[in-house]
Amino acid sequence: MHKQEFLTHEFFMRQALQEAQQAFDKNEIPIGAVVVTNNQIVGRGHNLTEQFKDVSAHAELLAITAAANFLDTKYLNRCTLYVTIEPCVMCAGALAWAQIGAVVYGAAEPKTGFSKYNPSLLHPKTIIIKDVLSAECAGLIQTFFKNKR
Amino acid sequence: MHKQEFLTHEFFMRQALQEAQQAFDKNEIPIGAVVVTNNQIVGRGHNLTEQFKDVSAHAELLAITAAANFLDTKYLNRCTLYVTIEPCVMCAGALAWAQIGAVVYGAAEPKTGFSKYNPSLLHPKTIIIKDVLSAECAGLIQTFFKNKR
Repeated sequence: MHKQEFLTHEFFMRQALQEAQQAFDKNEIPIGAVVVTNNQIVGRGHNLTEQFKDVSAHAELLAITAAANFLDTKYLNRCTLYVTIEPCVMCAGALAWAQIGAVVYGAAEPKTGFSKYNPSLLHPKTIIIKDVLSAECAGLIQTFFKNKR
Repeated sequence: MHKQEFLTHEFFMRQALQEAQQAFDKNEIPIGAVVVTNNQIVGRGHNLTEQFKDVSAHAELLAITAAANFLDTKYLNRCTLYVTIEPCVMCAGALAWAQIGAVVYGAAEPKTGFSKYNPSLLHPKTIIIKDVLSAECAGLIQTFFKNKR
């Protein structure tokens, strides 16, 4: 694999998708996230709300907590969060406090995504990039709920 | 103390203020919260964002995580959260996921309070009560920042 492949949004979104698959395998709504700085993954997480019986155990919160711990700072302005699905209000609020540098998400979440409530919930300096591998990201969720029926 | 005193919003807000004082004593922005159901405190928390270097270590999140753990459910629709300061967007989002029955807060937070962004960030069924011991709640914060100057 050439080095350039490591630098693409798709590469890191596939890492987030691997996290989402782990959630899927644990019967959790399959959403995954990674935090990247200087092309290095410094935090990972997948949804564990059922296992922890905790509404705050979203992929994004777990990933930024891991990154903050790894980097020994709560400010992640030099980091990019990759997440398979558009963050919710709670996660957008956390990402704003962390002053995350960029948020790259796969598929939009029209019902519970933050942008429905107020597109300005993130920090004003945070760059937002959408629709990276959105079909794969949304597809995993769709398969999950289809299997539930 | 008569039993009735235990049932007032002021009684439980004083408990939240005790939590805020603990944050103050640790040099953390002094915000405290308790979660109550059937007049029993089932979760407590105070801001620990500096100690944990974690933007998500807000009083409200710590208190609802504790309550969910104690009650063994992530849904807190029969619970009331008492918090000294108006919750931020992140905490409002978490409280919405938890479907908290009621939120009672002390002082409004015009800069970072959720209601500035969208008053509907909480769950539609959540009852909101404001201005309980607001002078004491705001005063503790003001003293904290005054001491910093």
